[in-house]
Amino acid sequence: MPASTPAGELPQRPEIRLPVRVYFYDTDSGGVVHNIAYLRMIEQARSELASSLGWTLQEMTSGARECPVVARTEIDYLRPARLGDDLEIVARLAGMEKIRFYIEFVMRRPADGVEICRCRQTMVTVALDSGRPRPLRPAWRERWPELVQQV
Amino acid sequence: MPASTPAGELPQRPEIRLPVRVYFYDTDSGGVVHNIAYLRMIEQARSELASSLGWTLQEMTSGARECPVVARTEIDYLRPARLGDDLEIVARLAGMEKIRFYIEFVMRRPADGVEICRCRQTMVTVALDSGRPRPLRPAWRERWPELVQQV
Amino acid sequence: MPASTPAGELPQRPEIRLPVRVYFYDTDSGGVVHNIAYLRMIEQARSELASSLGWTLQEMTSGARECPVVARTEIDYLRPARLGDDLEIVARLAGMEKIRFYIEFVMRRPADGVEICRCRQTMVTVALDSGRPRPLRPAWRERWPELVQQV
Amino acid sequence: MPASTPAGELPQRPEIRLPVRVYFYDTDSGGVVHNIAYLRMIEQARSELASSLGWTLQEMTSGARECPVVARTEIDYLRPARLGDDLEIVARLAGMEKIRFYIEFVMRRPADGVEICRCRQTMVTVALDSGRPRPLRPAWRERWPELVQQV
Repeated sequence: MPASTPAGELPQRPEIRLPVRVYFYDTDSGGVVHNIAYLRMIEQARSELASSLGWTLQEMTSGARECPVVARTEIDYLRPARLGDDLEIVARLAGMEKIRFYIEFVMRRPADGVEICRCRQTMVTVALDSGRPRPLRPAWRERWPELVQQV
Repeated sequence: MPASTPAGELPQRPEIRLPVRVYFYDTDSGGVVHNIAYLRMIEQARSELASSLGWTLQEMTSGARECPVVARTEIDYLRPARLGDDLEIVARLAGMEKIRFYIEFVMRRPADGVEICRCRQTMVTVALDSGRPRPLRPAWRERWPELVQQV
Repeated sequence: MPASTPAGELPQRPEIRLPVRVYFYDTDSGGVVHNIAYLRMIEQARSELASSLGWTLQEMTSGARECPVVARTEIDYLRPARLGDDLEIVARLAGMEKIRFYIEFVMRRPADGVEICRCRQTMVTVALDSGRPRPLRPAWRERWPELVQQV
Repeated sequence: MPASTPAGELPQRPEIRLPVRVYFYDTDSGGVVHNIAYLRMIEQARSELASSLGWTLQEMTSGARECPVVARTEIDYLRPARLGDDLEIVARLAGMEKIRFYIEFVMRRPADGVEICRCRQTMVTVALDSGRPRPLRPAWRERWPELVQQV
């Protein structure tokens, strides 16, 4: 079994808030942020959320070699962000099944309160060496039972 | 009014097939193609589909300065692709409303027939200068009336 | 003439230090950071350096519509960084001519002091609308005369 | 020893020509191709060159697990490419030492003959498992002795 943070040491709410800035490489010649670039920002938020829940990036490909893999992404692009914008992403664990779990993201531009995009990702824990799905960390299910969904 | 291909010159089926190859920059340290990289491949297919329907990339930011913008992406990751894989994307116009239209993508690895991912994108035509939505090209609606959806 | 920060308000040394973290999308299936990903990190540092010198990203494509463009990149990859690494980039203005200027970057991993890469970029200020080169900001030349090079 | 194509089966000249197209994700809000995007195109050309010299992408991370790694990139950006441009890259093996080898790239836009960029990369073969450099394939040195450089 991989070492895992005990449930008692996990934060009260599985949610983080991450500031991100728009650089040139995020934009396209339409003059706004490219649709794919938002998903890099969302991955930053997802990685920081996982880390805050005791699952660091280092641990993923070394050590336990268990890795959360994106099984499905749904993203709604609401309003465009632009070069130099300072944005903020709220990412939260939104649901857990035996194997799959769900993360929801809202990206806003605090300067004017505009909502830029909303995203929901279905995640599966995969053992890197076999490629097979693994059960979700018991400590997460124990810590936030209200997020556990019957399937 | 932007110049647009007349309906009579459009192909019989609004669908293209595009081969793509997996390069190092598409992969990640999990040993497989990164989830974001598939969306670059899908954008290639979307651009080639648009071009086959008489709407070239050159025309988008110069000339009429009307641009199809992704309003929503749904993508299901089914099986991982790997470095050096030769993949094939089928992209097809799947539905049209007054302003929005829908494109569906299936990505396969012909060598073993495995389906890698499925994606559906909601598109909106936007005037680059005003940022406002524009009605979908009439020639498209005229050429494929079976794809026109009442909203 | 574009508004520009007066020389007297510029910092004593044209240098910044930026922490960056390695995410999955930065790595490749060789197990380390992909060579292209370092250049995104370097662009972050370059943008933050420009901003600290009174030239913000917002100003670049709106307002004066003058933009620093990379004319040449030289980068030496010394040691690989890995998923989850916390890196630090030092970026400094290293020389100025009438039109061109030079920025040097050193990227290190503070945890073990290892130097990851070194980069030098030749920059040119370009007017976005005409595409033509523009003289370097006089305030920069006035503030750091020791960096002005005769050509 | 990894399986390697015998010298006699290698092409007469270690050079390939690759067409590439500029998509939205290659551009930035300056209205032209982003400086980093050219390096993805160059990586495509490098991978196809390696493949034409008997060293396929599949072989790199599976099989022999030997991988060519970029040790240095020099790139001169000469003229900007734009959305929808059809470009052509010529990539050629330009020199070989015991361990290092050099690849040179020229990217042109055939429509008007304009040269977009020139690049030179220093490559090193690395054993993926140990991270250590490996001698260059003997068959390459035998096939093109005029490219072997004394160090």
